Amino acid sequence: MDRKPVPRFEDNYTEEAAQARRDFLTQQTGGELTHTGHYSIDPASVRNNTENFIGVLQMPVGVAGPVLINGEEAQGWFYVPMATTEGTLVASYSRGMRMLSESGGVKVTVIEEFMQRAPLFEFEDARAGKRFVQWLRNQEADIRTQAQATTGFGKLQHIQTWQIAKMVYCRFNYTTGDAAGQNMSGKATHAACQWILKNSPEAIVYFALSGAIETDKKHSHMNLMHSRGKRVIAEAVVKRDVLQRLARTTPEIMFKQRQRSAIGNQLAGSAYSGPHSANGIASIFIATGQDEANVVESHAGFAFMDLTKEGDLYFSITLPSLICASKGGGTGLPTQAECLRLMGCEGAGKARKLAEIIGATVLAGDLSLLSAIVADEWVSSHDAYGRNRT
Amino acid sequence: MDRKPVPRFEDNYTEEAAQARRDFLTQQTGGELTHTGHYSIDPASVRNNTENFIGVLQMPVGVAGPVLINGEEAQGWFYVPMATTEGTLVASYSRGMRMLSESGGVKVTVIEEFMQRAPLFEFEDARAGKRFVQWLRNQEADIRTQAQATTGFGKLQHIQTWQIAKMVYCRFNYTTGDAAGQNMSGKATHAACQWILKNSPEAIVYFALSGAIETDKKHSHMNLMHSRGKRVIAEAVVKRDVLQRLARTTPEIMFKQRQRSAIGNQLAGSAYSGPHSANGIASIFIATGQDEANVVESHAGFAFMDLTKEGDLYFSITLPSLICASKGGGTGLPTQAECLRLMGCEGAGKARKLAEIIGATVLAGDLSLLSAIVADEWVSSHDAYGRNRT
Amino acid sequence: MDRKPVPRFEDNYTEEAAQARRDFLTQQTGGELTHTGHYSIDPASVRNNTENFIGVLQMPVGVAGPVLINGEEAQGWFYVPMATTEGTLVASYSRGMRMLSESGGVKVTVIEEFMQRAPLFEFEDARAGKRFVQWLRNQEADIRTQAQATTGFGKLQHIQTWQIAKMVYCRFNYTTGDAAGQNMSGKATHAACQWILKNSPEAIVYFALSGAIETDKKHSHMNLMHSRGKRVIAEAVVKRDVLQRLARTTPEIMFKQRQRSAIGNQLAGSAYSGPHSANGIASIFIATGQDEANVVESHAGFAFMDLTKEGDLYFSITLPSLICASKGGGTGLPTQAECLRLMGCEGAGKARKLAEIIGATVLAGDLSLLSAIVADEWVSSHDAYGRNRT
Amino acid sequence: MDRKPVPRFEDNYTEEAAQARRDFLTQQTGGELTHTGHYSIDPASVRNNTENFIGVLQMPVGVAGPVLINGEEAQGWFYVPMATTEGTLVASYSRGMRMLSESGGVKVTVIEEFMQRAPLFEFEDARAGKRFVQWLRNQEADIRTQAQATTGFGKLQHIQTWQIAKMVYCRFNYTTGDAAGQNMSGKATHAACQWILKNSPEAIVYFALSGAIETDKKHSHMNLMHSRGKRVIAEAVVKRDVLQRLARTTPEIMFKQRQRSAIGNQLAGSAYSGPHSANGIASIFIATGQDEANVVESHAGFAFMDLTKEGDLYFSITLPSLICASKGGGTGLPTQAECLRLMGCEGAGKARKLAEIIGATVLAGDLSLLSAIVADEWVSSHDAYGRNRT
Repeated sequence: MDRKPVPRFEDNYTEEAAQARRDFLTQQTGGELTHTGHYSIDPASVRNNTENFIGVLQMPVGVAGPVLINGEEAQGWFYVPMATTEGTLVASYSRGMRMLSESGGVKVTVIEEFMQRAPLFEFEDARAGKRFVQWLRNQEADIRTQAQATTGFGKLQHIQTWQIAKMVYCRFNYTTGDAAGQNMSGKATHAACQWILKNSPEAIVYFALSGAIETDKKHSHMNLMHSRGKRVIAEAVVKRDVLQRLARTTPEIMFKQRQRSAIGNQLAGSAYSGPHSANGIASIFIATGQDEANVVESHAGFAFMDLTKEGDLYFSITLPSLICASKGGGTGLPTQAECLRLMGCEGAGKARKLAEIIGATVLAGDLSLLSAIVADEWVSSHDAYGRNRT
Repeated sequence: MDRKPVPRFEDNYTEEAAQARRDFLTQQTGGELTHTGHYSIDPASVRNNTENFIGVLQMPVGVAGPVLINGEEAQGWFYVPMATTEGTLVASYSRGMRMLSESGGVKVTVIEEFMQRAPLFEFEDARAGKRFVQWLRNQEADIRTQAQATTGFGKLQHIQTWQIAKMVYCRFNYTTGDAAGQNMSGKATHAACQWILKNSPEAIVYFALSGAIETDKKHSHMNLMHSRGKRVIAEAVVKRDVLQRLARTTPEIMFKQRQRSAIGNQLAGSAYSGPHSANGIASIFIATGQDEANVVESHAGFAFMDLTKEGDLYFSITLPSLICASKGGGTGLPTQAECLRLMGCEGAGKARKLAEIIGATVLAGDLSLLSAIVADEWVSSHDAYGRNRT
Repeated sequence: MDRKPVPRFEDNYTEEAAQARRDFLTQQTGGELTHTGHYSIDPASVRNNTENFIGVLQMPVGVAGPVLINGEEAQGWFYVPMATTEGTLVASYSRGMRMLSESGGVKVTVIEEFMQRAPLFEFEDARAGKRFVQWLRNQEADIRTQAQATTGFGKLQHIQTWQIAKMVYCRFNYTTGDAAGQNMSGKATHAACQWILKNSPEAIVYFALSGAIETDKKHSHMNLMHSRGKRVIAEAVVKRDVLQRLARTTPEIMFKQRQRSAIGNQLAGSAYSGPHSANGIASIFIATGQDEANVVESHAGFAFMDLTKEGDLYFSITLPSLICASKGGGTGLPTQAECLRLMGCEGAGKARKLAEIIGATVLAGDLSLLSAIVADEWVSSHDAYGRNRT
Repeated sequence: MDRKPVPRFEDNYTEEAAQARRDFLTQQTGGELTHTGHYSIDPASVRNNTENFIGVLQMPVGVAGPVLINGEEAQGWFYVPMATTEGTLVASYSRGMRMLSESGGVKVTVIEEFMQRAPLFEFEDARAGKRFVQWLRNQEADIRTQAQATTGFGKLQHIQTWQIAKMVYCRFNYTTGDAAGQNMSGKATHAACQWILKNSPEAIVYFALSGAIETDKKHSHMNLMHSRGKRVIAEAVVKRDVLQRLARTTPEIMFKQRQRSAIGNQLAGSAYSGPHSANGIASIFIATGQDEANVVESHAGFAFMDLTKEGDLYFSITLPSLICASKGGGTGLPTQAECLRLMGCEGAGKARKLAEIIGATVLAGDLSLLSAIVADEWVSSHDAYGRNRT
């Protein structure tokens, strides 16, 4: 009644191994894997990216833009590759990019950046925990030394602590260069904790490398407040005539809808208060080899809109936990690297630039979808309205 | 100073058009798109999945499993394709699947399923809104007729309403067959709202097809409570000897860590209380052509653990808003369809089966990661512990 | 080393018993209780309100208003008694009441009302739980009969269910006449559950009268969404000239601050999005003998503001879980009953009227505080502003 | 159609003025205020506590305890005065106190304490805001000097900042001695902001003394995380035989229910994860002259339970934002001061002691209610259980 394991080989990252596994799966399940077996990449290149490799998924890529960006790193016009299977998505983002560009472009600013690992220490009672925290505050130099000995790029910036009952939940915050840095932070924190476990003057009765408050691969209010990845703000003043010409709407109508959506978001308890950050983030993440699961942390944030004195529309989005990298993970895979290069975002020194482009893209998508919602209402509901207004 | 738009053609879904766009982008940015231009799929097949098509992203696919599932639909052993660039992910899920299977398998149950569109109606004052809601309650038959006239599969199940100030936020809940159903629900609700706008005895002073409380592409407490997509529960009794043999840990240690992580989750305000649902969901979503952004809604949920009288470990995960389809969207693309077929989940009547397999996979991944966290602590911290305990 | 228990008597509700306890406490602690022993009420009257009675707390009462209310029940002018020790509170509420009244008054609407008890049933596995829920849906008539047999006023309106793992969390929703109804709901649900425990076709492996989701004496998103107590909306169009004359501000300035506070509320994850509902609610609750702890549920809600076409300020607050009674609890105590009578809210048929007056009061307080915040900034920061603007 | 204002006098804090207002109200409303006019306190003493004084509310006071406390400040046995109108509350808390005391007492620890005011600064764009934050970090010494010049007790501890769009939301954190400190913090922050407004190198285009993130008089996740008032942890190891003897239950049953309630709390999104902190806090707050509205912030927190190796029950509650004072506000009113004296908590140097007693009381109340829930189930449902188990 048992089932066979997936075949393993001396070298698992060859086309032969992949083909053998595809054949095995076809035999076991009856399903062909013809297209999955069609790829141009070298199987050896995915050695650090997957196990039991059977081939590749072919995900369609469209290109949105161009969009005019005024970032601290990204400056000028950008074409943005988006991997998606949702029709109209690329078209809608392109429309928003055009609206932003014709209004003078998007300003994007990266406010801060951190990656975390969150160890847990438990004590005999709360009072011992309180003493431990006081001790810990005085050991940050030693702890930093231990942590940073494990990594060339990671820098321990600060340690946050929260005490509940007799447990002390810590959050070690690092900068991690151009990598996303989850593994780097984990390794560094593990080393730091070994030192703490050896040197703590308080008896530690339980320890775990994670007490869950880095909320890796999970949205949380913690991350909304305390930046996981990059805290990115994209903003633009969308011109009245652009809204009218390209979206058949006005700043006032957009603003009116925004106010009401904000109440809906509060009622729903939404992680993001704009229309759909996740679409743009997921598509660029996949296209550029980011960890595809990090979209859950990255999509959270704030939309803010205001009418300017000149009668235009100030619109901004704030993404407090956008996790993206220009090195490591899947960024070096062939198609992913090509997509990064398209934006000048491959390799060292480019992670913040990529974050800025993603921020600009999210703003474009929210602008486009929001204007679609109000324009649809504006036009198609006109008759009905007419009746009720009289 | 302006930049050129991406070229468009009479037929945008040909290799010639894609090549022309790649050439254009290379010319504009200097970046080559060689691998992106390598694919086996017919460009015409992505007509409903992307715009400005330039080729495909090659995302590595590994296969996890097999896992023994006892679902209402999925029954028996399954190999699960995962598209990912995160090393160790497939291996870790496979380990969890083995632990579950050797414990007798995973039981998975789909509790309910809904897809929503959430129109907003505004009135002169709150009292008019209150009267409108009372009227609406009596018109559900007519509204259902209008909504369902637009779709062959969508069925309007019930309408929820929340009133804030003078606004009535509605949530139209549909079943949508084997499609995810966002568009179906939108179209049906639009038609229903036209009827409401015409027939409401109360003057409607503002209307929008969305007041934001369907929280499409956003995590929300609303969806945690009121099921968007499928509400899936996966559960297993993990045997003590399996934990010891495959993960060098015990039910008691797992349970102890679980209790403390739960407190960390409460402190952080996390959307999901287990370790990492998003990894499994994102990987299968991408492999099977699901909307990749829906992982943000889908990853939310509850982990629950208990020690059984027999000394084993009951472990379950509840995903209240898992959005998945066996038809529509990207499910019909060549590699995606192959991955669906591998699990017997392609086409009509298979969406719940797919949801069950995803649920089982999430449980496997959480089991594996959690046991890795505690085993690491158990072993490597042993000396430090020893010192502090004495 | 032990301490003596508080003395008990054959009849604990006499001045003699109270005096004996005060003497005992003075002897034990050295503290005099002279003022606490000074009261005009009959000790026998607090028999259902406290144990170990030692006297009364003298809480100062100020009266705010008058305020002009247009409710479904409360109509006309009201003076509102507020028990408080916070200086300026009564004055500030009075100012807001004047601003509202001079603008034409407050419109208040009670949208719905429920009180809950939330039993928990656990099963062998999730699938049994799913079958139980289906069975439960078909037994609502029988369950209602059992529940309502225990009470003259409580009516079981509907049962909500949420399933997590193998547990089914229920929420029994009652209307409870003019009482707050927590005990009534508890007793009725207890009876209903006895019937369910006897008749369930599924084996119930664990049961508790509360699985915590009525969130009694706790704020929760559940209650924000699903009305505990009364869902009350107070709204007014505050006239431009009233704002200028009484608060030296304008609708535009108020609105600008409101938008920014709303973002602050989202960042903070606040239970209430206006300035300070809790002040008004707590003061009236204490003055009228409500359960003083219920302010935690009652203070949650939504503030919404808009500029009208006429240039005035629409301002409303929505309180989804305002728990108040005109009968039962402390409402019959002498001073509390006097305060209720002052508003014509004593006894049968008056609970909704009281809810409306509280709603109007909260709106007045938020209006007053918000205008104080912006006026202060407007005036005192003028110089600093001037410098920075140049 | 107008209503008369409440009469005002040259000296509003005399019995004559109060009597005149009572007479006026009786004339206007028909309601007598006989008992409200009966008091022993000097009207002049409430000058800073209320306006339009008409008399006092007589709130019954019962005394709970004694309870054995092992705090950093509170040490020994305490009788706790509770002002309440909810029958059984005092009895239930007393029972919990006995259970704790017979188990060896409650250990209470105050982890940290802060009071906040949260000014908002807005800039031309996000980049200016980013520069402002960097500047602000370097000015903390000057800002501290400005803030502390306004107060003898308030010490500015640290400033937190969050940037969203072009707005910088600050949170100024003070220690405030034995006062609650809201006014002190407001005044100090106002002074600091005047200095900032004058000296900021970035043009400030909007300023408000509050951007809402101190969440005064509102529960928030912000306060759950970042301590408003005192962060208090109460913990005890409740003995097995005490649970059996006094509550007819066992550690295992208590623990089982706790696990399930925790899931219910997560589902509901509850501010507090134990049974009912608000009851104890509200009753002591009222009895001791605390700001009665602060119960909404103070009731939030965490319950944590574990089974010890010895077979007993570790139970703790963590209250991260308990706002209490031994000076200022209503603490000096005659009956309130008597209640404080009963616990040795009046005046300078006693605020932390009071916080510890409140923490111990909350733990007692949660222990008692939780054991009542499970005992009820244990006994009364026995038959039903029996049937289903067979």
